[in-house]
Amino acid sequence: MSDTDMKSSNVVWHAPVTTREARERRNGHKGVIIWFTGLSGAGKSTVAHALEDSLHSMGCHTFTLDGDNVRHGLCGDLGFSDEDRVENIRRVGEMSKLFVEAGMITLTAFISPFRSDRDKVRELVAEGDLIEVYTRCSLEECEARDVKGLYKKARAGEIPHFTGISSPYEEPENPEIVVDTDKHDVDECMKQILTYLKVNGFVNTNGV
Amino acid sequence: MSDTDMKSSNVVWHAPVTTREARERRNGHKGVIIWFTGLSGAGKSTVAHALEDSLHSMGCHTFTLDGDNVRHGLCGDLGFSDEDRVENIRRVGEMSKLFVEAGMITLTAFISPFRSDRDKVRELVAEGDLIEVYTRCSLEECEARDVKGLYKKARAGEIPHFTGISSPYEEPENPEIVVDTDKHDVDECMKQILTYLKVNGFVNTNGV
Repeated sequence: MSDTDMKSSNVVWHAPVTTREARERRNGHKGVIIWFTGLSGAGKSTVAHALEDSLHSMGCHTFTLDGDNVRHGLCGDLGFSDEDRVENIRRVGEMSKLFVEAGMITLTAFISPFRSDRDKVRELVAEGDLIEVYTRCSLEECEARDVKGLYKKARAGEIPHFTGISSPYEEPENPEIVVDTDKHDVDECMKQILTYLKVNGFVNTNGV
Repeated sequence: MSDTDMKSSNVVWHAPVTTREARERRNGHKGVIIWFTGLSGAGKSTVAHALEDSLHSMGCHTFTLDGDNVRHGLCGDLGFSDEDRVENIRRVGEMSKLFVEAGMITLTAFISPFRSDRDKVRELVAEGDLIEVYTRCSLEECEARDVKGLYKKARAGEIPHFTGISSPYEEPENPEIVVDTDKHDVDECMKQILTYLKVNGFVNTNGV
């Protein structure tokens, strides 16, 4: 028995009355996690918000958990060390799982550099409940964009543990979707994912 | 500048395209936290799930964060020491805030024994975004019910830091609602809260 198991041993699971299935029926689409991973500046948040906007206009129920906005709140106590990144992704995974239970199409936009962490999130949920989207863009291109000026700071040694510079990024081995943001624009990447959602029955093809 | 501020100093806020207001318009009701507090066995989860069921049947978009189910996931690393209880409530507060952003009526059922922690959650959100429901029931009645057998264990010294026995419960001073679960049944308590939501315009009076 792990320490966590012991700590939780006096906890009883309450079966909710209003279930995920009931919510999905009402919403007219499935709950699912769309997990964007990729380098800083690769366009994860940009594509995620474009996709969310498109899904919302179709009547879907969506929410985007963003590396930047979650880090102001739930994970405001965490930094960017390897250990804190692991805990950050664990919390986002657990939170995403709850949003899926709530029947939402849950978009997450985090660098999530470590394969093992992303695999752990996948293991948290049922098969088919997580769509990994590798937002692929070369380090050179991300650094050239440097929208937030972070690469410059990282190169100057002002930001420790910066993914791609002083901390590794492990590419996904079998992501459901790869969007190449240095070859295609935001709208094209967004439509590529939308098509996947329609073809695989996550949302209806005639709107929702 | 606190340590947390420093850690978050390279974080940029992304304005979401699909906003809370857009979701609320679509859903036909407001996003709000309904925060149940009270002793173990007072009926927080029971009343919350009855209320959720009723709201769902009216077409509202709801989710219940439960002391028991959150503690299996997001807060699975936390125990029941005072320090861990504080962190537990902080995370639930931050998560609830995100659910409200997602346009959901977010019910939380946690003992949340410390006034200061509940006040912190209230400060996280805009005025009117949190409805505190004191699920009031005497310790004697809760202990007589002892649905989960926890009071017996606590009296036997098998559970440290048990609220009401070996850890304090601080009653709310100005809760929006008090439901007396040792005087009224679940349905009456649920309807009392539902009436509050209707009268105060959180949900429409003619269903949603």
